[in-house]
This record gives sequence, C-alpha cells and structure tokens, in this order.
Amino acid sequence: MEINSNIKIIAFDADDTLWVNEPYYRETERAFTRLLTDYLPDLPEDEVSKLLFETETRNIELYGYGVKGFVLSMIETALKITNEKAVQQSHKNAGLEIADAKIINQIIELGKALLHPPMVLLDGVSETLERLNKKGLKLVLATKGDLLDQERKLKKSGLAKCFHHIEIMSNKNEEDYQNLLKRLEISSEEFLMVGNSIKSDILPVLSIGAYAIHIPYHTNWAHEMVINGQQKHERFLEIKSILELFPVIEHNKNAFFDALANKR
Amino acid sequence: MEINSNIKIIAFDADDTLWVNEPYYRETERAFTRLLTDYLPDLPEDEVSKLLFETETRNIELYGYGVKGFVLSMIETALKITNEKAVQQSHKNAGLEIADAKIINQIIELGKALLHPPMVLLDGVSETLERLNKKGLKLVLATKGDLLDQERKLKKSGLAKCFHHIEIMSNKNEEDYQNLLKRLEISSEEFLMVGNSIKSDILPVLSIGAYAIHIPYHTNWAHEMVINGQQKHERFLEIKSILELFPVIEHNKNAFFDALANKR
Repeated sequence: MEINSNIKIIAFDADDTLWVNEPYYRETERAFTRLLTDYLPDLPEDEVSKLLFETETRNIELYGYGVKGFVLSMIETALKITNEKAVQQSHKNAGLEIADAKIINQIIELGKALLHPPMVLLDGVSETLERLNKKGLKLVLATKGDLLDQERKLKKSGLAKCFHHIEIMSNKNEEDYQNLLKRLEISSEEFLMVGNSIKSDILPVLSIGAYAIHIPYHTNWAHEMVINGQQKHERFLEIKSILELFPVIEHNKNAFFDALANKR
Repeated sequence: MEINSNIKIIAFDADDTLWVNEPYYRETERAFTRLLTDYLPDLPEDEVSKLLFETETRNIELYGYGVKGFVLSMIETALKITNEKAVQQSHKNAGLEIADAKIINQIIELGKALLHPPMVLLDGVSETLERLNKKGLKLVLATKGDLLDQERKLKKSGLAKCFHHIEIMSNKNEEDYQNLLKRLEISSEEFLMVGNSIKSDILPVLSIGAYAIHIPYHTNWAHEMVINGQQKHERFLEIKSILELFPVIEHNKNAFFDALANKR
C-alpha cells in the first residue's frame, strides 16, 4: 500500500479502544456501592456514587489515573460515609470514629481483582494491528494509567509485538502529546492518534496539528454530543469500529487523508 | 573533553541518587508504627514493621513500586493488626471486625504527604549534570516508581532540562534495561548507569554487558557487603559521592574506562 500522506506513526489508546476496561471499573463501583448500602440501608445508592466521584475529582491531581488511586478514593469515601453515620448516631466515643474494617478489606480485595481483569480484546483489534504492521506502518501504544497495570494488560493482550513503541502517560494534554512527538522524532502532521476518548485522544491531538480518529466505546456514546461540532475538522474522522480503520486506509491508497476529507 | 570510550549515554537513577527519598518512606513508616502502637500499646514496634514488610512483599508484584501501593499495604497491615486484636479480645460481634477508622484516615493522610515530599537534591547533583551536559554527553533518567509521582518530583527538582530522555520503569531487571537500550537505539557497551541500588542499578546492568557506577546512599551502606565480590568487575566502579563522577570522567580524557580499570 502506498499511503500518499505524511503519516509516519499511528498511535492507539488502549483502554476501551483495544480492550474492555471501563465496564470493570463500573462493576467495581457497583460492588462498592452495594457494600455501603448493605451496611447502611438508608443510604441512597446515588449518594455513594456522588461522594465517590467528588473524592476522585479531589484526588486525581495527586494520585493520577489508574486502579490504585481509585481504590484509595473508595476507601476515603467509605470512611467519610461510615464516619458521618457514626456521628449521626451520636456515637458514645466520638473521638474514636468506628468503621467496619470488613468494608475496607473488601474494597482492597475489589481493587486487587480490578488489577487482574479478564482480557477481552475488542472486535477486529488483532487483525487490524497485524494488517497495519504488514503494510509497514509504525504503531505506537499511547495510554494513561498505572505503569505496571498497563504493562500487565499489554502482555496479557498478546499485542505487544505489534507496537514499535509503548508510551504510558500520566496525562494526555497537548504538552504530553508534544513530548511524545519529540520522543518519536516526528512532526505533528506525521502523527495519527486513534482512541475512544474525545477529551484525551482527540481534542489535544487536533490542537497540536496532528490527525485523530475517534472510535466511540459503547459506554461513552453519551459524550458524543461534544464532538458534533468537530465533525468538519479536516484532520478528524469518526468511525464506528476499529474494523473500519484498515479499509479506510487501504481503500484510499493514493490519498489517505483525502479519505478523511471525503468522509466528512 | 574527548572521552575515548564508546559510552554514548549516561543514565541516572533518581530516588536517593539525585534526591532524598528513602528517609521520607522511613519517616512515614515510623509514623505508621506509632499510630498502631498508640492504639495497641502492647504491640511491639518491630512486630508492626515485620507485618508491613510481609504485606509489601506479598503485594509488590501486583502493586509495583511507589507511594500508592505502599499506602494500600499500610492499610492492609493496620486492618490485619486491629482485626487480630479484636479477635483476641473475643469481640462480641465477631462477624463485624471493628477497626479505628481514624487510623485508616491517618494512613491515607500520611500517603498524601509522602506524595508531596520536600525536594532535597543530593550534594553536587546539579553541578555534575550541568557539567556533563556542557561536555555534550547525553543523559537519561531511569527510575522506578509511580509515573505521576516521579514526574512531579522531576519537575520540582528543576533537573528535567538536563535529560535527553526520561524513562519511568515498572521494574529494573535485565530485560527492562535491554528494552531501554533498544528504545535508546544503543548497544550495551555504549551505556553507563549511575545509581545507589546494587540490585536495581548495578547487577542487571553489568549482566547485560553495560557499565555501572555505584554511589551508595547512607541508608543502604548495610547492603554494601553484597558488592565486595563485584569490585573487580571491569565495567564497574564505586564512588562515594556524585561529586566524584565528573572528575572521574574529566581526569581521564583519553580513556574514560581505563579510569575505571585503574580504580579497581
């Protein structure tokens, strides 16, 4: 294939672009909520979610993305909830805030399970990466999350051999992508990012002058409204599944990015 | 300077090689021990340390290195200790293992403080890196730990500008160094690692045929016995302080690694 474009490297997000991730987090959050509502039956479920979300938001700058920070935020939320309950019940010994240690232990176990999730590749991932490899395109994995956790998932996925370079990032802002390009020694118009997150994989990439293909994951369709204003961007394309990625490239041998333009 | 050697890249470990780290962990561990011995005055201090060490060892493969995994292991240890105490006291409600939520909260706070430690560079670090930079040597930072945490420390250190490449590693085994060399596109005889840990910075590096300089940190002198057998290795040198690093290189303009040989 002669891709008549300047693209030298295609980078892929990992979680929910190559493999299932978000559903395991949501499952863990539901189990966490059940732990607390079983303990405090009067507590509304969405109150737990709301408090957890607040704690996570407060901690994200300090802990970053990934399972361990999520577990620490769940523990902090559980302590806050059980402590408030103890105060409400005018606990005799107010200086000693009593919680159920079992809950904290169970949260730790939920976290350990979340560090060993089943590895489920999304439809068409292996074939697509292998076909792109065969065509001589350089592929990069560019993902957020805990370093060790992402390395473990990559190993389990069997996809490591497809990637020329693995980049585990603490953030995916414009500056982070610029550092990645510097490291890869390419310019922005030579870089295409493929991912499911508008905020992390698309907008900062377009901002620095690179190309981006969005593959929404079913749980983030709700956010899709955001992108409608972006649809006409000349360096942006949205596809429904990674199964469409190779045909998009293959079909337009002479002008890969004309294909993007045509699809607008 | 004309370094008459093949060395193209000098990599530095970060924690306790460039800046103070281990003392903050030990301080946190002492605060953790005090929390538990204040709560359970009969508990011997070294029993707490022993249990924490056991928990950390059990969890290291899952959590990896860094503050967040350490905090999760402290919480797990505290729960184990307080639960055993509750059982000893034949707690009426054996199904509900009661712990002091305050302790868990305080552990989380200890962890948050450990993520914002004072940045104290070791003597001679800035000058040495700047002088090596001026001589046109490519410097790399190669460190373990939480991604975000190490990036934050590097930023705070003001040293980022000295490094050509930053590599935050989940492990420092032979394979990890081999991957690093591949990424840097150099061969093992072109690579010199400088660090304080025999296990992480020296032995795997010598094993893959690269060069290593050991700068012991005061808290790990106890381990020095290990290295005595290594002293005669032709690609290894031990110096007392990073202040000696530049002179070692500078003084031996014509044969940098003869210098190592002469120091044996």
